[in-house]
Amino acid sequence: MGDAKSYALMLADAVRENVSRVDGDGLSRLVDEIERARRVFVAGAGRSGLVARAFAMRLMHLGLQVYVVGETITPAIGVGDLLVAVSGSGSTRSVVLVAVTAKRLGARVAVLTSHESSPLGKLADVVVRVGGREEVLERDYLAEQLAGFSVSPAPLGTLFELTSSVVLDAVVAALMERRGVCEEDLKARHTNLE
Amino acid sequence: MGDAKSYALMLADAVRENVSRVDGDGLSRLVDEIERARRVFVAGAGRSGLVARAFAMRLMHLGLQVYVVGETITPAIGVGDLLVAVSGSGSTRSVVLVAVTAKRLGARVAVLTSHESSPLGKLADVVVRVGGREEVLERDYLAEQLAGFSVSPAPLGTLFELTSSVVLDAVVAALMERRGVCEEDLKARHTNLE
Amino acid sequence: MGDAKSYALMLADAVRENVSRVDGDGLSRLVDEIERARRVFVAGAGRSGLVARAFAMRLMHLGLQVYVVGETITPAIGVGDLLVAVSGSGSTRSVVLVAVTAKRLGARVAVLTSHESSPLGKLADVVVRVGGREEVLERDYLAEQLAGFSVSPAPLGTLFELTSSVVLDAVVAALMERRGVCEEDLKARHTNLE
Amino acid sequence: MGDAKSYALMLADAVRENVSRVDGDGLSRLVDEIERARRVFVAGAGRSGLVARAFAMRLMHLGLQVYVVGETITPAIGVGDLLVAVSGSGSTRSVVLVAVTAKRLGARVAVLTSHESSPLGKLADVVVRVGGREEVLERDYLAEQLAGFSVSPAPLGTLFELTSSVVLDAVVAALMERRGVCEEDLKARHTNLE
Repeated sequence: MGDAKSYALMLADAVRENVSRVDGDGLSRLVDEIERARRVFVAGAGRSGLVARAFAMRLMHLGLQVYVVGETITPAIGVGDLLVAVSGSGSTRSVVLVAVTAKRLGARVAVLTSHESSPLGKLADVVVRVGGREEVLERDYLAEQLAGFSVSPAPLGTLFELTSSVVLDAVVAALMERRGVCEEDLKARHTNLE
Repeated sequence: MGDAKSYALMLADAVRENVSRVDGDGLSRLVDEIERARRVFVAGAGRSGLVARAFAMRLMHLGLQVYVVGETITPAIGVGDLLVAVSGSGSTRSVVLVAVTAKRLGARVAVLTSHESSPLGKLADVVVRVGGREEVLERDYLAEQLAGFSVSPAPLGTLFELTSSVVLDAVVAALMERRGVCEEDLKARHTNLE
Repeated sequence: MGDAKSYALMLADAVRENVSRVDGDGLSRLVDEIERARRVFVAGAGRSGLVARAFAMRLMHLGLQVYVVGETITPAIGVGDLLVAVSGSGSTRSVVLVAVTAKRLGARVAVLTSHESSPLGKLADVVVRVGGREEVLERDYLAEQLAGFSVSPAPLGTLFELTSSVVLDAVVAALMERRGVCEEDLKARHTNLE
Repeated sequence: MGDAKSYALMLADAVRENVSRVDGDGLSRLVDEIERARRVFVAGAGRSGLVARAFAMRLMHLGLQVYVVGETITPAIGVGDLLVAVSGSGSTRSVVLVAVTAKRLGARVAVLTSHESSPLGKLADVVVRVGGREEVLERDYLAEQLAGFSVSPAPLGTLFELTSSVVLDAVVAALMERRGVCEEDLKARHTNLE
């Protein structure tokens, strides 16, 4: 049995472990794709959608032209654009629909998912495999950490979502370095109306 | 200089370190407040608002009555309700406005912030201090980890936001345990329309 | 050629004319369905989605349990629930996907659309035909009003969206009357945090 | 007593009457301000916020650079930008906060409101007076139309919101004419991912 602080430490350890398993090559290719893209569109459903939006906000701070699928002023996607989709299962229907359409319209597609052979994994130009949304049995590398706790501290896609948040913030850091952008530059673009 | 994977590991370490500094008592009191509340309202601006929404989604999965300030069907707040505000600085004007109003209307207020003596910290019934949004000079406990990297991997509120995500998911785990709720119960309430 | 005020008058006339062509029986059946539903879910893409959300907000003010598909705390839909979809074309893919799923899960579906024989029109239990999103040639009943203006004052789905807004607010009025709810009752549920 | 269709006709008449009372000069000045602005930001709370967003979507279709305050990728506002605020009362605190800040940062402010002497009305560079959100007693020009109905068909800000929708779509039509933009041009920018 654990109090909230114990669960928090356990989750942080699990995220750290999970980050170490992320494919670094896929991640670097994502950075390249973003650098080359005319505009970046992000998509995701539920909590993965919130992770995608947090990433989009930082890309805007970086000075990139970026849009969130489903928000008010998101324009038509086309050739030269990049869609970044976040989906643990890789098969969330609304996100698959968006990605299939984006491909058909000539955009490139990158996806963060736990399932490379999912519909999203298969159609993507770049797959960044981020664990945490496998079937419960496959998450056994967490078993040791979970021992002694009566519930999983990472139900549903929690581990995938937290790890994706860290990984996408690392993409932001890599982009800052490449573009020679500092924290003050980001701050200057941060909304000043809230 | 680092590639994205190196930044991701560094960020995960920083989050782990930062989680270990979170006040466990404040966190446990937050769990108690949520258990006692009639309904929970969450608020936050920018990326902190996305963190708050990810938390709200899980509280809904847990079977609690929860609302996001600013979304369409959020009703009037009142006595017996709890507002959970997320703000690194503790002084984001729109969030302070919401919290002041919630207090005046008889609701209780909990806040996750790096600044206990900020406007939000002062008016809250429960403060969970989560580091990461201090002034840059105060973040020196991260200096060792940052050595050798040309940019901060955690610009603006990044570290606060990532840590708050972990901490709030730990609150969810603690609530699951207390209420005897398992992953399948959450899944049954998860939206089936996306 | 016209100034903005002239366009506004012309649009208001077109909406008035378009409202007069709405099927009153379909509208009354929508009121009945809402009265009978356990919970109401609303869905729509783009500007139709905003119309759906404005409607959802008033249903909440009326004291009904209502959710917006895609917002944070929207739970699983099921038997006894009603989905109200707004789509001029009746074939917006994301909305069709939601409606097909809702039907499969046992919910009833009502749709506002200009196309009764569209995918949404065909699967719905109740169709409220609202004009304005027909092909341009079919909108000839507006031709007289448009004479003398160099552009259509109602591009894309504008006329459908404005008319749907009026029609759904009329549904709210009918529900107020049936349930004996007055403006003060709505006001008491209106968010007090903005 | 009325059925939904009767209420719809009554509402459409009330909107038509209300549109005829809108100040045409204010409306033309709004068109001018938008034409001159570097970028347009829109803001509003609740249903007025949805009206503002529907307007923003069309401005994007028109090819303007436009943002919704509170959405993910909205950047910092500054000199040369225009904020369009929608608020029936003219005193919604969150919107006043945004407008005051926008003014301080050098942006111009336009407001649609029923109250010219409200906080928003006073600080705005352009006020478009749109009726419908006056105190109930002042809405007596609607009394004749309301006779015989047991409830108001336009509770709270309904009449203001519907009229503002029409008026802002008329601004879109005027901008289309001025810029020589046709429906096909709008369609080309309309999102193709839903």
